[in-house]
Amino acid sequence: MTHPKELVVLYPAPQSTERTFAPVTLRRLHEEFEVLDLEGDPDAERQLDLALPRAFAVVGQPDLPAERVERAVSLRALCNVEGNFFPNVDYAACADRGVHVLGCGPAYAQAVAEYSLGLALDLARGITREDRAFRAGAEGYTFASNTDSILLRGAEIGLIGFGNLGRALHELLVPFRATIRVYDPWLPERHLEEHGVIPASLDEVLETSQVLFVLATITEESERLLSEARLRRLRPGARLVLVSRAAVADFTALIELVSQGHFLAALDVWPEEPVTADHPARAVEGLVLSAHRAGGIPAAFEKIGEMVLDDLLQIRAGLPPVRMQVAARELVHRYRSRPVTTAAGARNA
Amino acid sequence: MTHPKELVVLYPAPQSTERTFAPVTLRRLHEEFEVLDLEGDPDAERQLDLALPRAFAVVGQPDLPAERVERAVSLRALCNVEGNFFPNVDYAACADRGVHVLGCGPAYAQAVAEYSLGLALDLARGITREDRAFRAGAEGYTFASNTDSILLRGAEIGLIGFGNLGRALHELLVPFRATIRVYDPWLPERHLEEHGVIPASLDEVLETSQVLFVLATITEESERLLSEARLRRLRPGARLVLVSRAAVADFTALIELVSQGHFLAALDVWPEEPVTADHPARAVEGLVLSAHRAGGIPAAFEKIGEMVLDDLLQIRAGLPPVRMQVAARELVHRYRSRPVTTAAGARNA
Amino acid sequence: MTHPKELVVLYPAPQSTERTFAPVTLRRLHEEFEVLDLEGDPDAERQLDLALPRAFAVVGQPDLPAERVERAVSLRALCNVEGNFFPNVDYAACADRGVHVLGCGPAYAQAVAEYSLGLALDLARGITREDRAFRAGAEGYTFASNTDSILLRGAEIGLIGFGNLGRALHELLVPFRATIRVYDPWLPERHLEEHGVIPASLDEVLETSQVLFVLATITEESERLLSEARLRRLRPGARLVLVSRAAVADFTALIELVSQGHFLAALDVWPEEPVTADHPARAVEGLVLSAHRAGGIPAAFEKIGEMVLDDLLQIRAGLPPVRMQVAARELVHRYRSRPVTTAAGARNA
Amino acid sequence: MTHPKELVVLYPAPQSTERTFAPVTLRRLHEEFEVLDLEGDPDAERQLDLALPRAFAVVGQPDLPAERVERAVSLRALCNVEGNFFPNVDYAACADRGVHVLGCGPAYAQAVAEYSLGLALDLARGITREDRAFRAGAEGYTFASNTDSILLRGAEIGLIGFGNLGRALHELLVPFRATIRVYDPWLPERHLEEHGVIPASLDEVLETSQVLFVLATITEESERLLSEARLRRLRPGARLVLVSRAAVADFTALIELVSQGHFLAALDVWPEEPVTADHPARAVEGLVLSAHRAGGIPAAFEKIGEMVLDDLLQIRAGLPPVRMQVAARELVHRYRSRPVTTAAGARNA
Repeated sequence: MTHPKELVVLYPAPQSTERTFAPVTLRRLHEEFEVLDLEGDPDAERQLDLALPRAFAVVGQPDLPAERVERAVSLRALCNVEGNFFPNVDYAACADRGVHVLGCGPAYAQAVAEYSLGLALDLARGITREDRAFRAGAEGYTFASNTDSILLRGAEIGLIGFGNLGRALHELLVPFRATIRVYDPWLPERHLEEHGVIPASLDEVLETSQVLFVLATITEESERLLSEARLRRLRPGARLVLVSRAAVADFTALIELVSQGHFLAALDVWPEEPVTADHPARAVEGLVLSAHRAGGIPAAFEKIGEMVLDDLLQIRAGLPPVRMQVAARELVHRYRSRPVTTAAGARNA
Repeated sequence: MTHPKELVVLYPAPQSTERTFAPVTLRRLHEEFEVLDLEGDPDAERQLDLALPRAFAVVGQPDLPAERVERAVSLRALCNVEGNFFPNVDYAACADRGVHVLGCGPAYAQAVAEYSLGLALDLARGITREDRAFRAGAEGYTFASNTDSILLRGAEIGLIGFGNLGRALHELLVPFRATIRVYDPWLPERHLEEHGVIPASLDEVLETSQVLFVLATITEESERLLSEARLRRLRPGARLVLVSRAAVADFTALIELVSQGHFLAALDVWPEEPVTADHPARAVEGLVLSAHRAGGIPAAFEKIGEMVLDDLLQIRAGLPPVRMQVAARELVHRYRSRPVTTAAGARNA
Repeated sequence: MTHPKELVVLYPAPQSTERTFAPVTLRRLHEEFEVLDLEGDPDAERQLDLALPRAFAVVGQPDLPAERVERAVSLRALCNVEGNFFPNVDYAACADRGVHVLGCGPAYAQAVAEYSLGLALDLARGITREDRAFRAGAEGYTFASNTDSILLRGAEIGLIGFGNLGRALHELLVPFRATIRVYDPWLPERHLEEHGVIPASLDEVLETSQVLFVLATITEESERLLSEARLRRLRPGARLVLVSRAAVADFTALIELVSQGHFLAALDVWPEEPVTADHPARAVEGLVLSAHRAGGIPAAFEKIGEMVLDDLLQIRAGLPPVRMQVAARELVHRYRSRPVTTAAGARNA
Repeated sequence: MTHPKELVVLYPAPQSTERTFAPVTLRRLHEEFEVLDLEGDPDAERQLDLALPRAFAVVGQPDLPAERVERAVSLRALCNVEGNFFPNVDYAACADRGVHVLGCGPAYAQAVAEYSLGLALDLARGITREDRAFRAGAEGYTFASNTDSILLRGAEIGLIGFGNLGRALHELLVPFRATIRVYDPWLPERHLEEHGVIPASLDEVLETSQVLFVLATITEESERLLSEARLRRLRPGARLVLVSRAAVADFTALIELVSQGHFLAALDVWPEEPVTADHPARAVEGLVLSAHRAGGIPAAFEKIGEMVLDDLLQIRAGLPPVRMQVAARELVHRYRSRPVTTAAGARNA
């Protein structure tokens, strides 16, 4: 008699099974596990309740209050595939029962890092601005449009936040031999030094950076971290790349300061998405405008599925998960990510 | 009695002394050498003739036919600061007399490499295109505008040309762990392998690359290297970055193919500069338009002056030049760079 | 009224407080915490029992059965400073109570990696062997003693095990541009690929490697992994570097095969330590002999103290530990490390 | 009618054709060129004279005074395969006639770099010393023999000389994230900075380095560069790796200072080779002894042949040589390398 397969419940909304699992990955998941896919099932909640006692893993973000966790006596893993840990799960109960709470943040890290570097090079060299000028018949050749162009090589670079995103970005920055300062109040200085970056205070990062990347997660402490007063400390002509959470910055002040020419900025996140049609940012020359595009690319989504599959196989084999990110019990309650209100479901972490 | 200082003649046009030499560099040059600056001197040609017999170095691109070289009995170095070796110098005569013929190509390499990477990331992720859409009120959030976005990480990348520019770009590409194929008929395969890239034929590079960088210098052989037939071999959806010389490609075909959606391209050089006001490229969505901006940034220009100063000090001390590029006698005649016709003097190498 | 400081109990044996904590680190620990150092205290066990209910952290390897863990109601961290997880702790009880069980393995990783590379270069080039010959007056100059010398550059390299040690070693190997295959049955293939190495079967690693590093931890599965039959699959003239656990290899066969000239080996661990005076290995030319020296250097020990301090500060601040290694509940029971029987207490991880 | 093949004269002594050209390389050389191999030919000198007027290239170190160079009217390349430029060639005459004078130094660079790193890791960790102790039954386990062991990671490292060898070594040192200072009076500071190292004075390098690599070529200026007074400036316990030329150091003082325990050293070159049987160095514990072994390994020799072949093909195709090193006319006369007096012909560069 063969051993029955472990049960994996897919409940991916607002993600989708198809986007998250490439066909080859989904096929392998079905081979290795019994799979119950509740995507789009109008009866999903009841099905979930029925399945919980036998579930080996839940892939998605369903409500999991203590009561449900308690009934999930076989549960070994909760795999978040959305990128944010919502407060609809009793994470403490999961921890107490030895359920691995896993996040898909690493799947987005490379995509966000490459995009951030692209935005920084755009700001450093005026790529988007000059493409617009060219289309308007007003391009300046060679030196004429390059007077404010700078190299990243040897530049003073600042990072606010040094989690998955910061580390992935740092790897791409290595060959630029820049001076890289990092402000991250969640990490010991020696941890940063081991990664080859310079620990720094927020003020130091703000005041020294020619290029500043804001990669911080939102918590109570980081909300409005970049107040108007702090934004005014940026070096004249600095380049600011904001790809994490809009709430870390005073957006009104930020856009106003760019309009006035204090610094340049690339913005991938916005306090309200979609941005209103008459939003003043749409006309500011010193901005590169981006609609929450940093992380949610096909390669990142497919990687989520691969990470889920790999780690479920690890756990089933009595091995620790290594590809998804283990949610730190200290932090999982502190994130203040608000589900995006737009119909588009994907968000970067 | 002090030894008289060696004479350095500055004749930088179409470059300028001010742009090429930062104040601190120029001051040092004057301290170390006797400097005759002929920039803008209406009598420059006669002054040059008078100075030649005593000149230790000429910095610039004046006409130096055999007759002048012969009279320059003390000449040790000819430092080109424009980026191209024009046919107005008898390079063979210089070589015969042991005059170092030095180019400033390396000064531009980092600037071009960073710009090329910026253009590639732009094409890979649609940065410029989506900024335009955002300004037009038509942005697509998250996945909606990302369906064709790709990672450079692990991508199939091709380089046509592996001189200063290719090597500088390759260094920046290392952390992306891509498969990098190089076509460069001027270099032995083992030379490429030592640099960690894969030697490949032109067809192989064209057919396999998701991102293709064209960095080739123009010679008779490379003119129209990228004919329409060859451009049609590019992978559907490929990204083409052209930053070297417009003459390597059939521009009409290239722009037409991008218009039809065969591939995307970023163009920094053009067959005619400035581009005509009604040029069809100005309206093509799949292009990133750039007006010969890759190399000529302030940091590159200032580096030229530093390189000139450093190498003149080396040569005066009986040491070989190490910062500028020694012009290969085999190649200096083969370049077919045409002086740019626009007033803007600076060009990237 | 000031808040009382959290209590940290030091119970480092067989490690020592002095070796583990540099003066500056220990001073800081005392400033930040109430410290009870039980090192060498004859009454240590009773003191520990008394302190447990109030202990915020235990630094060391005391017996912690379920009963003690239950009484340690304030315990947040158990910091192992020895390098091995002994079975004298009820790790499950710790996990259930949310106690962080932390290991100091990362402190040794760089030391072991550098030592392993040193051993590999020694074997590749005969450094130790030729120093001996030189002292015996029998040195061979230049080519005469170099006929079997090989480069690591571009070599076929194998790693058995890709944990802390493997990753640290891999980082050092990157500039050698070698082909690096890894056998690690505890890790998914994609995890290895993400780190830029090639996942491989044990046989493949054994048969292809010119240089083979054995970095595996001992578990039931890995005991005698390198049986005589497997060792015979090594390439003739291969170099084997063994720095993890002696039990992974059939030592008798290994030493015999080296004696017969099948391959060369550097051995840092031994089935019995100290090695008997008449051990045949002492006279084998093809060996580099080393007495459990790979990890236990002053810099590694001092780093343990820094890691402990940093992570206790993290946990006290409500943040997750990031410098020590979180013990995987799946693995902590599987290690079969036997306390070294020699008086020397320090062991590498 | 086919064009006759260009004539390549092989005159490799004290190198040998067999050692320099792998079979596949030699076969290709014969396919592409007419080859006259004078190795071991008792009539070699007369044959050379007869062949010179038609010779396209000479591979080796025959006497080439002005008279012979003048008769070599077709000569395009002189490929030195020994590693040193002897004064038996009229290099100025070669330069005047446009003959490429090429050196094989780069072929040895990787071998010397890996060996130097191996020696440094040996000194840092006592590998050779403890292997000797183990064989003598006096090994100290773990911490007992590690009290003076240091990490290269983050160390203060000095390089004297930054030519082929220094650059190759630097590449290997990158992942150690050390502070690397370089003293090289032949190179501008900015050249060093571009390579990511810190230009420094000789005194600074001597006084700050924990590990000091001496890679300098011998010239009049560098002879006895490391006098006793300068060696006394080394940090107590420093590690000195000497792999270039013995004449750069006062060997008597060096060995005496190591005997007294001032610092440790690895010596690969010696004022007299072979070293006398009763040389005091043979018994000094603090030394690692090596018999001119750094560069002359099979992989390096075979690379010479490949470089010669590749560059002859380049030159024949009207392209510049890129694999061998172009001899700087300023330097070729300044080297004071003395042919090694031992029968063994190979020497590292």
